[in-house]
Order: sequence, then structure tokens, then C-alpha cells
Amino acid sequence: MTKKLWGGRFTGKTDPLMEAFNASINFDQRLWQVDIQGSQAYARALVDAGLLTAAEAESLVAGLQQVAQEWAQGEFAIREGDEDIHTANERRLTELVGAVAGKLHTGRSRNDQIATDVRLWLRQEIVHLRQHADQLIGVALERAAEEIDLLMPGYTHLQPAQPVRWSHWLLSHVWAWQRDADRLDELAARVNIMPLGSGALAGNPFAIDRARLAAELNFADITYNSMDGVSDRDFIIEFLFWATLAMVHLSRFAEDLIVYSSREFGFVTLADAYSTGSSLMPQKKNPDALELLRGKSGRMVGHLTGLVVTIKGLPSTYNKDLQEDKEPLFDAVTNISGSLQIACGVLSTLQVNPMAMRAALSPEMLATDLAEYLVRKGVPFREAHHVAGAAVQMAELQGISLSQLAVEDLQKLHSAFEADAIAIWDFDESVERRDVDGGTSRRAVLAQIAHLRAWLAGRHG
Amino acid sequence: MTKKLWGGRFTGKTDPLMEAFNASINFDQRLWQVDIQGSQAYARALVDAGLLTAAEAESLVAGLQQVAQEWAQGEFAIREGDEDIHTANERRLTELVGAVAGKLHTGRSRNDQIATDVRLWLRQEIVHLRQHADQLIGVALERAAEEIDLLMPGYTHLQPAQPVRWSHWLLSHVWAWQRDADRLDELAARVNIMPLGSGALAGNPFAIDRARLAAELNFADITYNSMDGVSDRDFIIEFLFWATLAMVHLSRFAEDLIVYSSREFGFVTLADAYSTGSSLMPQKKNPDALELLRGKSGRMVGHLTGLVVTIKGLPSTYNKDLQEDKEPLFDAVTNISGSLQIACGVLSTLQVNPMAMRAALSPEMLATDLAEYLVRKGVPFREAHHVAGAAVQMAELQGISLSQLAVEDLQKLHSAFEADAIAIWDFDESVERRDVDGGTSRRAVLAQIAHLRAWLAGRHG
Amino acid sequence: MTKKLWGGRFTGKTDPLMEAFNASINFDQRLWQVDIQGSQAYARALVDAGLLTAAEAESLVAGLQQVAQEWAQGEFAIREGDEDIHTANERRLTELVGAVAGKLHTGRSRNDQIATDVRLWLRQEIVHLRQHADQLIGVALERAAEEIDLLMPGYTHLQPAQPVRWSHWLLSHVWAWQRDADRLDELAARVNIMPLGSGALAGNPFAIDRARLAAELNFADITYNSMDGVSDRDFIIEFLFWATLAMVHLSRFAEDLIVYSSREFGFVTLADAYSTGSSLMPQKKNPDALELLRGKSGRMVGHLTGLVVTIKGLPSTYNKDLQEDKEPLFDAVTNISGSLQIACGVLSTLQVNPMAMRAALSPEMLATDLAEYLVRKGVPFREAHHVAGAAVQMAELQGISLSQLAVEDLQKLHSAFEADAIAIWDFDESVERRDVDGGTSRRAVLAQIAHLRAWLAGRHG
Amino acid sequence: MTKKLWGGRFTGKTDPLMEAFNASINFDQRLWQVDIQGSQAYARALVDAGLLTAAEAESLVAGLQQVAQEWAQGEFAIREGDEDIHTANERRLTELVGAVAGKLHTGRSRNDQIATDVRLWLRQEIVHLRQHADQLIGVALERAAEEIDLLMPGYTHLQPAQPVRWSHWLLSHVWAWQRDADRLDELAARVNIMPLGSGALAGNPFAIDRARLAAELNFADITYNSMDGVSDRDFIIEFLFWATLAMVHLSRFAEDLIVYSSREFGFVTLADAYSTGSSLMPQKKNPDALELLRGKSGRMVGHLTGLVVTIKGLPSTYNKDLQEDKEPLFDAVTNISGSLQIACGVLSTLQVNPMAMRAALSPEMLATDLAEYLVRKGVPFREAHHVAGAAVQMAELQGISLSQLAVEDLQKLHSAFEADAIAIWDFDESVERRDVDGGTSRRAVLAQIAHLRAWLAGRHG
Repeated sequence: MTKKLWGGRFTGKTDPLMEAFNASINFDQRLWQVDIQGSQAYARALVDAGLLTAAEAESLVAGLQQVAQEWAQGEFAIREGDEDIHTANERRLTELVGAVAGKLHTGRSRNDQIATDVRLWLRQEIVHLRQHADQLIGVALERAAEEIDLLMPGYTHLQPAQPVRWSHWLLSHVWAWQRDADRLDELAARVNIMPLGSGALAGNPFAIDRARLAAELNFADITYNSMDGVSDRDFIIEFLFWATLAMVHLSRFAEDLIVYSSREFGFVTLADAYSTGSSLMPQKKNPDALELLRGKSGRMVGHLTGLVVTIKGLPSTYNKDLQEDKEPLFDAVTNISGSLQIACGVLSTLQVNPMAMRAALSPEMLATDLAEYLVRKGVPFREAHHVAGAAVQMAELQGISLSQLAVEDLQKLHSAFEADAIAIWDFDESVERRDVDGGTSRRAVLAQIAHLRAWLAGRHG
Repeated sequence: MTKKLWGGRFTGKTDPLMEAFNASINFDQRLWQVDIQGSQAYARALVDAGLLTAAEAESLVAGLQQVAQEWAQGEFAIREGDEDIHTANERRLTELVGAVAGKLHTGRSRNDQIATDVRLWLRQEIVHLRQHADQLIGVALERAAEEIDLLMPGYTHLQPAQPVRWSHWLLSHVWAWQRDADRLDELAARVNIMPLGSGALAGNPFAIDRARLAAELNFADITYNSMDGVSDRDFIIEFLFWATLAMVHLSRFAEDLIVYSSREFGFVTLADAYSTGSSLMPQKKNPDALELLRGKSGRMVGHLTGLVVTIKGLPSTYNKDLQEDKEPLFDAVTNISGSLQIACGVLSTLQVNPMAMRAALSPEMLATDLAEYLVRKGVPFREAHHVAGAAVQMAELQGISLSQLAVEDLQKLHSAFEADAIAIWDFDESVERRDVDGGTSRRAVLAQIAHLRAWLAGRHG
Repeated sequence: MTKKLWGGRFTGKTDPLMEAFNASINFDQRLWQVDIQGSQAYARALVDAGLLTAAEAESLVAGLQQVAQEWAQGEFAIREGDEDIHTANERRLTELVGAVAGKLHTGRSRNDQIATDVRLWLRQEIVHLRQHADQLIGVALERAAEEIDLLMPGYTHLQPAQPVRWSHWLLSHVWAWQRDADRLDELAARVNIMPLGSGALAGNPFAIDRARLAAELNFADITYNSMDGVSDRDFIIEFLFWATLAMVHLSRFAEDLIVYSSREFGFVTLADAYSTGSSLMPQKKNPDALELLRGKSGRMVGHLTGLVVTIKGLPSTYNKDLQEDKEPLFDAVTNISGSLQIACGVLSTLQVNPMAMRAALSPEMLATDLAEYLVRKGVPFREAHHVAGAAVQMAELQGISLSQLAVEDLQKLHSAFEADAIAIWDFDESVERRDVDGGTSRRAVLAQIAHLRAWLAGRHG
Repeated sequence: MTKKLWGGRFTGKTDPLMEAFNASINFDQRLWQVDIQGSQAYARALVDAGLLTAAEAESLVAGLQQVAQEWAQGEFAIREGDEDIHTANERRLTELVGAVAGKLHTGRSRNDQIATDVRLWLRQEIVHLRQHADQLIGVALERAAEEIDLLMPGYTHLQPAQPVRWSHWLLSHVWAWQRDADRLDELAARVNIMPLGSGALAGNPFAIDRARLAAELNFADITYNSMDGVSDRDFIIEFLFWATLAMVHLSRFAEDLIVYSSREFGFVTLADAYSTGSSLMPQKKNPDALELLRGKSGRMVGHLTGLVVTIKGLPSTYNKDLQEDKEPLFDAVTNISGSLQIACGVLSTLQVNPMAMRAALSPEMLATDLAEYLVRKGVPFREAHHVAGAAVQMAELQGISLSQLAVEDLQKLHSAFEADAIAIWDFDESVERRDVDGGTSRRAVLAQIAHLRAWLAGRHG
């Protein structure tokens, strides 16, 4: 067994399985770049604190640069004993620059180092996630604007309720994505805070200038309590929650589209790129992309729940349990990133079938309009609603559609019906009547689009 | 069976169990006040929209006021058929003011009504929660300031690591609570948005002025998509996540204090008000309050997970599944509110045992200081760390404490040791040496307190 | 404040909120009957152990009987200080029989008492749950047998795949329920074990005959380690998992039926008893019962997750955190019980629409049969599958249905097609061709029904 | 892009990210052996069904054997287009044996194939897990028998409660492991059931003899409904629950040992193999192994919750969401397997410190014995308990230990005290007094060991 970082004290034999469990290099090597970035900045801070000469720091920074290059080119060789990315990088650095490497960890602990690395890494990833979210929203706004004239049934309880614009439906998902984007911005601010200089738990003893170090690493602020600094995983839990809720939103979007792309609804057709066939049934075209978007919500909830369980009831500061934070985080980033992009791909290439949508509108969906007609004639709503219900029943009994009821029949139900009742049965008019802010009228939908476009532009301004 | 709101169409018999499952009056009656508040505002909006006369609205508002009084005085009688708070209030209103009550629901649906009610209710509760959080933080800051001179062992992995100030430990929890408070403010903004005027899903058809209605109800904004407005439960899920994370923080605080109040640690003693005895063992004094704080984290995670599961994969707009949102929310508010107050009570009355804390400091906890001594003499940290490890081992072999090693012995390990090595073994000095921002020195801890006091004042400014 | 059970030592003031948090009487009063049952048996055991005279025991048993009667008649008055059901019952017993009541708790602790109570209670409830499950399965078998000739599309990925019998679909859910029933039997055996006699943690010091006590209470066995006996909540967690999985099964059943009862599929119609209307839209008939079955899966997962979180990382034996076990258990029992019954009600009253099902069968769903035709002619499956895919494409290009392709056209795709290819397009034949065990042929479906009937009879034998 | 299995129909371009999301070969290659095993058996079944000649089957079986060898020797090369293990194996088989490979999938679907593979794989793993569990239990029984004379404080609420045998504490965990082992046996039976022959969803059309196929693959039974057969993931969810509960048990075991190995308790010392040092603090010896055991409970809960979420509300039969079942399963097996072995290693090498345990016993822990003394003298328990409480208080006021109270003082509290009261204060006697089944007396503890040894032998008999 090669020498461990903590050196010189342990005499017992080790258990290879325990070594494997204890090691994190398999997954935390993903942090190589930020680990080196942090170490380079820390080396410079040690100069300011009088613990390194400028020449020593230069040697360390250059050596770390070479380590980085080896990683970037896929040439870094992990050796036995490299239990985590910090150990691996320092081991290699020592090989490259010699004993001075032993000064790099002065006043630093792996506890504040890993907390800093993960924050640096997640900060980067969030930038990409924001772009993917914006792109998805952008595509949706584009389609909503272009396809504003398409009508479809709006459903509640998966039963046809009232006619709505297809764009109104699409935007109903966009608003959820917009909230996700805003939440991501908020948590990003809590990620971008530097724990480096917290030591193992009690703070750095060498008068490191943490504010300057933070500035060099582009952190917006530092953590103000070293025990909290090495122990706080809120920012990861928050991110996992963010990913969970974002994924749940995608699951609802996917569910709608899975149903709408069923043969029985037939409102949309997925591009081949996002469908697959069957190994047994040649006619099948399955919405695999959407099912994965729906199914992956489980993975995210699992990661969130898992980390919360791990952290619940833990004594303060660092405990080894915290090593369990990274795998769920890495997997969550990979999957939410892919999911946002795939959702965007699905939506970009989705074919809508306007005729099928229109054909699915039925006069019964205007029963509420019938009641509203009466309300406009001064009938109290409860009474009007009751009359409309009776009209639905009357049509059913006669075996005809609601719109085919004669005005005379309607008048039997209520004397307020007049010849103009015929105007009730126009779907486009019905949609236009819901013209309040947030409604499905053309004006209100265009206002939504304008609102969201301004918001999106504001994020990139 | 009494007549249902949807009237006139159903002919089949009902299943009493289904009635019970379907009804929400048992738990949503908690919303009586906000339901009435919303209805009163809506009645006024109907006047502006020309659907009610001023006299009709006045009659409705007055009638609703009377209904509110009945609730307030515990005199409201729930009748069979009152399946939810909306139905109950409207039924009673009808009894009080007659047919005009049938106009109140004009253009409104229970879908936008319930979404509005819950937001109004949660908005209120959040104000109280903020106060409880602030009070807890306030007490902690008070104690941290007064007890700043107490030292205790700082632990990592529940093993003694380095000496820290008791106040530093206490503040490490305060920073978590501060993040909780900030997060609560952020989500409060997303709660305070009005869905009223979304109708069942497609928007209000009667040109209600939603902006004005929102202003009357003190909402900061309106929802801009009616389908999203009736379906969005993000604000509840966000709140449940908030409560989960806040409760997990309390679970860690509780765990620390449970351990510290064990006979073996003995650092703190709980007030009798927060302890209980045993029905069998007369000598017992159990930290029940802390155990409940720790245990209730499960309840919160459960509520969060549960609602996420319920909403995952749901088609858009309203589905009855959403009825499952209220019980977890109500229970979460009750429990996080009580937990914050109890945590405050525990902390306010907690007795600290400074002598036990001090007695628990041991020279071995200064091994890092020994290494740092060498670093200050120019020895590279890795080498210094190794020497310190050897010193620990040497002391163990000699059966003495680390601080009892003679300077001559130390010099056998490294020639850089000099007579001044004796100064290493002062716990107070050790603590003062960690004087960076976020460290455990007196200055750094006082800076934390000042920082947090300013933040707290800013919230009430 | 009234005197607490642990008596005589506490002097500090109490916090009313803490009292409320600490108390469990609000929910554990549900255990009144089993608590009394356990105490009566324990009184008799104390006689055997020589700690009570027969007369004393008689007095206790009779007094407890009277307490039970008060509960049964709704006359039991909970007093301040009755913090849990044990305290309440003993307090009342003392009022009724005097000082001898103070002997009942001899050697017993609330720790072993509550563990015993919950097991007694859950044992009863499981009997009812079994009946509800059996009834649901029974109704399903009845329908499956009667409606065996109805064909419908079988779906994968919610896309039409192959024709199946309606009964085959229905039975696919029954098998999941059968597994649930078997699992319930297994866990019931682990519930039915008696911890009484474990004391607070170290065992009973008065030579109670636990085996005899267990026999009297109809427990199948006793716990064999007192520390485990007071701490083990596996049986509750197992039950919550059982309820979760059972509810997830109901959620899938509900999802299928929600989709099948949509207007677009139209395969089934829910009875009015399990549907509700809309407060705004008179034509609506919503599958509320099914949506609740689907939505309540979240509640169950929440309870399971919550209790696991509470128990994770807990020190052994009793900790107050365990008080959090009862509310989720009680709520889970209530909801899974109601859900099983409602599922049974829905299924009992569901109307199927055979014509809509039959109309939804399309020749494209026989593409696999086309490939199988070729396989029977000796064509390797992969090639046959490829040809069938080409046939689907050819039909699409010609704008005709797959079954309308002329044999000549088919022969262009593969020379093995002959005139008998016409027989492919018979849906009933297709279904009959899948005649292996577990297949959808009439014989195989009848075999399933027979198998399940025998299993069901075996459970009641 | 290489040709996909479903061949010939898709024309659109693909999205590389979607390809990556869709593919499972990265993780399901772990199933290579069982996939080949299943295919070999299926080839033979096709002969029986008259679809393959013996020679063809022989060629397939031999070809598959060669594929297996390539996997075993790490020589199997995954090619672009090998989206899952089935595709990869069949692609390679085709390269090796030519067109006859195209007959292997006759009547089979990836839906029944993957369900079969996972069951075969998990069945194997369960055998190993059983061995690991048995070994852990075996070591614990060994220690419990050898160290039966060691006493330690038994805790409730982490407060010293009553003296117990160290072995009694250790066995309290063994009983939980024993339940885990029993539960594993039960679920193993539900894993060992064969879905092969279910086709895509409707059953196999070629009269495959499923019973014979099951016998060849050593399955105990077959699935009896093809739609359920391809869709049922209960066995995976059950396994994840099993792993969760088993891990929660290990988390409690770990928590106890973390506390007991703290410097302040000092009851046990971990072997170096299961501890690690600190990169900063040379004196540290951290119980990393135990912290990982505790922390990994989160991972398991996460996997369980995640899969439940994924499956909740899914339409019946196969949906692509189900692809999400394998990663959590694989990770759970790896981690629970390692955790059981590490727990065994920790326990095998753990050093106990009998003097520290004994020193931690205090007379106050015998307050219950004091009350029991009075009970034996005929005092009702409630009164005796009250007196004991008063004695505790009296000793506290006098600043002495409970056992130092003079008999005269005790007599002031109750006249029943006599000279023999001195015998109360013997810890060994106290332990022996709890001599019921399940108690902590020597006899009762030896009985537990005998009981568990017999059970363990029964599993291997």
C-alpha cells in the first residue's frame, strides 16, 4: 500500500473493500479542473500571507498547470493510493515539482478544499443549465407566436373542458420553466460563496486574506463561519430540489404530449429522432424521449431524498457521511442538462395536427358559454349553471349534440334564451371571450408572449 | 343527500366512502377566513365588471361578514353536502342572503378559488414563521455575544478536533437559519401572486379587472396563464422543501445538543420544561424536545416527497389529485412553526456547563498547532504534519499527554523545535490564532455577530 | 399543571407548546381498546408472578372494562395531563378503583406498552385490509370471467400494440393485487409478535411468564431481545412500504382507467357515484375517484419516506423520535383501506363499451402477426420483422390500411406470402394465437382465472 | 449510424444526446452473462416448438458461448448501435454465426427478455447477500457468546438508563439483521419467477413450453399474465426496500458505535483498517467506515423513492420509463453488499474497552431497582416509583451518589426500606434480575444466542 496523506501513524492492515468504499477518486475526478484552479489561487494567497516565496508559488502554479494539461489530454494516470482528486493532484504535483508541493496544503484541509471545489464546479454547470432552459423557453415562445391560431380542447381531469389556444397550453408549461429559471438564479447566488480558508473546522491560522482569495476565484462572498463552511451542503440540496421540481415540470409536459401523441388523441406527432420502434412490433413508434423525461423525475426525487436522509441528524461540521453528496449531484446535473436539451429537441421538431385538434372540439365544451350567455342576460350564475346542465341532459336524451338543441327547446329550460343563442356555438368566439389577463384570447396570449420575451431578454441584457 | 353544487345532472347513487374521500371540508375549513376574504373582493370586482349592482355586492359582502363571524365564534355548523369550504360558505351565504348568493360564483371556478385561498393563507403563515425564525436567531446571537469566552472541543467525525469557542459552534447553526430565513423571503414572493380570474382553466369571460382585484387582496402580481394558474402548486412544494431543509437544520442542532447533554459529554443541561422523565426509571431526564426536533424532520421530508409524487406525471391543469396538497401543507406549517418556537425555548433556557467544556479540551487537540508551529519555522506543511503525527504516537507510547513531551523529545522528531514550543499548549491562544474571517478567534466571532445583527435589523428596517 | 406519571422530581415550568408537541393523546387515543386489552392481560400475568392478588387483578380488570365502556360510548373525558392513551387510561382507572391501579404498571414501561399496543391494533386492521383486497380481487375475477370475449387494444408506451382480451388487461392488475395480498400475509406474521415484558429496555425483573401472556393475547411469538423489542419499528415501516406499493398498483390501475374513460378513448364509463361534476362547467363528468386513487400514492410514499428518515441513524432502544411513527401509520391504514374499497366500488360499477374497444382495433396492430406468418413459413424472425415494417410503410404510402394491401403487394416484399395471408387480419384469431401460459388466448385467460380463484379460496379455506 | 434492431422504417435524423439517453449498454452490460444464459435456453425452447432445427440451435448456443467468453475475457467490443445488452449480444452473435442469429428473437421481445435477465441476475446476487448477512450475524453471535460477562450502560434517549450486558446490546442489532435475512428469503421467492414467453405484452404466439423453459433456467414458477409479466417491477422495488431497511439497521448500529467510540464514551476502539486520519489534524482517528454505513442509508432510500416515483401512475405494460429501474438496482446491490461486509469487518476487528464500560455504570441507573425493591416489599409500583424519584432528588441535594444514601435516609422516604436495601447497588445482580425471556440476564442472553444459532444453522441445513 502506498503512503496515505495523513501519514505515519496507522499501523493496522487495511480492508480492500473499505479502501474502495472510502475512495472517491472514481467520481470526484470530475472536479480536476476546479481543484487545480482552487489550488493555484491558494498558492498565491500563501505568498501574500508570507508562507511561500513568489518563486515557490510560481513553481506550484506551473506544476499545477502541467497536471491540468495531463487531465485535459487524458494522460493523467491515477495511481494506487490516489483516494480522491485532492490526493491525486497533490501526489502528481509532488512528482513534478518536488518537496515544495508539501507546502501547498498549509492551513488548508480537505474539508474546506472539497467544499470549495464543488461550489466552483456547480457554478459553471449552472451557467450551462441556464442556457439550456432559455433555449427551451425560446423555442416554445417562437412556436406559441407562430401557431397562435390553432385551437384545441383544454382538459381538466383529462376530460374535455373548454376550447383553448394551442399556444395557451404550450405557454402554461413555459411559465413553469420560467419559475424554474428564476429559482436557478436565486440558488446560484448561494452557490457562489467561498468556504476556502475554513480549515478543517476552526478557521485558517495563517492570516490568509479570504476576501482577496474569493475575488481571485470570482466568488461573490465568503462563508462567515468555518464550522458551517465545511459542513454546509444546503447549496447541493437546493440544487437537487431545483432539479427535482424542474424535472417534475418536464414530466407533466411529457405526460401531456404522450397523451396527445396517442393514436386516440392524435394532436401531435413526434419526430423520428425522439421516437423508437419495437424489436417485436414493426408498426410501433414509441415516444421514448417523452417517457424518459417523465421517468427521470424519479431519479431526481431519489437524489434529493437520499441526500436529505444522509444529512438529517448529522452532528455539525464534517462527517464522512458527506462524501455521499457528490454522486447524486453529478448524476443530477447530467440528467437535468440532457433532459432540458431533449425537451427542446422534442419541441423543436414536434409536428402538430391542427385538424385533429379542431375536430376534437365539441359543442358540449361550450356548456359553460351557454351558462354565461344566461348570466349576460341577468340570470344568476348558479341558476344559469343549472340550466346549462339541464340542456346537456336534454341533448343527451335526444341523442343530439348540445349545439343542435333548438332555441325553442332552450326556451323550455329558461325564458331568457333568444335567437342570438346561436352565437354561443362558435369556438373561436368562445376563446376570444376569455379576454382577461391570463386568458386564452388572442390578445391575452400575445401579451403573455411579450411578457416572457421581455423577461428572457432581461436575463441576457 | 342534499343537492350538490354542480346540480341537476347526476342520477346515480353515491358511495358514502367516496363522499368522505372526496370531501375536503374536514381539513380545508382552516381556510374559512381567506375564502371569505377572497369572495368579498370578488364580489366587488363583479360590480366593476357590471355583473352585480352595488346593492347586491353590499348584501353579499355583509352576508359573508356574518358567515365569518360564525366561524370566528365557533358557531358555523357544517351540514351534509358541505364538501369543501367553498361549498359550505356559499351554502350558508345563500341561507343568509338568498338567491343573490347564486351570483357570487359568476365566472369563478373552485379551481381558481382554491388556488387563491391557499396562497392567501400561506402568505399569512409565512409572516409568523419569519417572526419565529428571527426570534430563534435573536436568542442565539444574544447568547453567542454573552458567552463568547467559553471554549469547547470542536468535533469532526464526532472526534475531538480543535478547540473552538462555544459561540462559534452556536453561530455555525445560526448561519443555516439565516439561509433558511432568506430562502423563506424568496419563496414568499412566489406565493404572493393571484390566480383568481383564471376560471376553471381558460380564463374569466367577464372582463374582471384582475390587476385591481390583486391590489385589493394585496397580491404583488397576478398569474399570467390561466391553465398554469389553476394547476401550479410550485409554491406549496417550495414551501414543503423549505420546511424540510429548515427542519433538517434543526435536526442537526438537536443532534449536537442531544450528544452534548449526554452524561458522558455533559456540556449542557436542558431545562425541565423541555425534558421529560420516564414512567419506569425515576432518575431519567430525557431530551424529548430535542428528539422531537430531530424526529420531525422525517415528517417534513415525507410531506415534500409525497406531494412531489402526487404531482409527478400529472396532465396539465386541474386534476383531483391536487386535493392531496393541503393536508401536508397544513401539517408542515403547524410543525415547523412549533419546532422553531420550541428550538427557541430550548436555547433560551439551556444551561451550559463551562467547566465540563473546558475539561474536555485535551492537548492532543493541539497537534495541528504543533504542525503549524513548525510551518512557522519554515518546515513544509506535509513534513510538519508528519512530525506532528509522530509526536502523537510518541506520547501514546510513553503513556503521556502530547503536551507533556519534553522539548528534547520533540527535537528528536524535528530539529526546528525550540524552547518556545511550550506556547503551543495554550487553548486560548490556539483559538485566537484562527483569526481569519470565519475563524474562531474572538474578533472573528464578534464580526459574525455584528454581521448577523445587521442582517436581522435589515429585515425589520 | 396536573401531576405527571413520572412524578415527584421536576420543578421547572413547562412550555405549553412543548406540552402539546410532547402529547400524543390526540392521535393515540385510537389505541384505547388494545391498550386496555393489553393491560387486562398484564394484570393477570402479575397475579401469576405473585405481584397481585387475584382480587386485586379482578378489580383492575373490571375497572379497565369500565374504562373501555366509556370509550366505546364516547363518554371518556380526556383531562389535562392525559398526555397519551396509557396515562389517560391509568388515570381514569385510578379514579375508578383507587390505589391498586398503581400496581398495574409494575415492571412495565410505556416503551414496551406502546410497542405492544400498536402491534395489537395493526394486527386487527390487517384482517380488514385483507378482506378489502380479497373483495376487490373477487370482483375483478367475476368480471374477467363474464367479459372474456371482449377485445381491446393492448398498449405499450400508450401506443396501440396488439389486440388483447379486456379480461387479460384486467387480470394484469389482479396479479399485482395478489402479490400485495401475499406480502400482507408475510408482514402480518412479523406484526404478530409480543414485545410486552421488555420493560424500558433491559427486560422485566418480575419473572412475568411472557409466553403465557403472549398466548393470552393471541400473539404467535414474543420478541427475544428487550432492547430490540422496545425499539423495533420494522413492522410499521414494512406496513408503510406495503401500503405504498399497493397504492402504486392502484395508481397504475387508475391511470389506465382515467385514460380509457377519456372521451378520446371511450372504452369505459364510470358510475356517477365515483365521478363528480364541475362547479363551472355543466357538461363535465370527472373521474375523481380514480384521480384520488392515483394521487394518494404520494401520501403513502410520503409516510414511508418520513418514517425511514426519522429512524435512520437513531441510537438503539427507545428515543422520543419514535413517537412520530403513529400518525403516518394511522393515516396510511385509513387511506389504503378506503382506497381498496373505492377501487372495488369503481370496478363493480364500471360500464364497459365493447363497441368502442372493438372499433379501436386496427390492422396495423397485426403487423407482428404478419411477421409471425412469415416465421411460420420459415423466414427468420429478423427478416420477417423487417418485411412487416416495410409493409407498414407501403400501406402508409398508399394511404390504405395494412390489411388492405393486396397479396401481390405483399409478395413484392417477400415471396413467402401466399393467399392464406388474408387470415392474418382476424383480431380474434390473433388473440387466440397467443396461447402459451400467461397469454391472451381464451384458454390461457381462463386458466389465470382458475388459478386465482383457487388461490383466493385457499386464503379462506 | 449503424442499422437499428427495429429496422427499415425510420427516416428522420437522430439526436446524439437522445441516442445517449436512450441507450442502456453503459450499465446493462452487467447483465451479459444472464442475457446469454436466457438466450441459450430460449434457443432450445424454439427447437421444442419446432421453430429451429437442432443444428440451428446448436449453432446458436455455441455462438452465444463464444460471445460469453469474449465478455468473460474482457474482449467484447461494444460497437456504435449496440444500444443495450440484448442488441449487443445479438449483433455479435450474427457476426459469429450468420443469418440463423435472426431466428433467436422469434416470439421474444426485449420486454420479456430484460425482465427475465434482471431476475436471473438478482437471484444470483441475493445468494451472495445472504452469505454476507449470515457472516455478519455469525461474527456477532461469536462475540456475544465470548463477551457475555461485560456490562455496560443501556441507554434510552442517549441517557444512561439501566445496566445491560454488552452482548445484549450487540444482539439487539442481530435481531434486526435476522429479520432482514428472513425478509430477503421471502422476496427471493418473488424474484425467482420467469416472465420469458410474455412477448411484447400479449404472450408468445409459438406455443413455447414455458414451464419447461423455466425448469431449465431454474425458475421456481412462471408469470401468469403477459401484460403483468413485462411490466411488473415489484421485485426490484421490494429489493430496494429491503436494502433500505437493512441499511437503516446498519445506520443505527453505526450510530451506536460512533457514539461509543467517541473519546467521551470510549467503550470501543475501531481497528485502523476501518478508520482514517485527517489531512490536517495528525491526532485524528475517524470512524469513517461507520459514517459511511450511516450515510449510505440515504443512497438506498433515494433509490427506493426514485423507482417508486418513476412507476407511480404509469400506464400498464411496458413504458420506456422502466429503463430507469436498473441503475438504482445495480448501485443498491453494490452498496448493500459492501456495507454488510464492512460492517462484518468492523465488528470482527473492534476492540472493546470493558473498564470504560464498567466505569460508566452509575448507581443512579439503579433507581428503578430501588423502586422494584419496594415493589417486592408490597409497595404499589406508582408509589415506589415516586419514592425512588424522591431518593434521586435527595441524593442530588446531598451531593452524593444514590448508593451512598444511608438506609435511614431511605427510610425517611418510605418505611419499607430495610437493611437489605444495600443489595440494590450491585450492577451484576441488577442485570441478573431481568431474567425473563428477552431480558439481559446471563441465561436469557445465552438463550438468545442459542436461538439465533439454531436459526442460522437452519438456513444452511
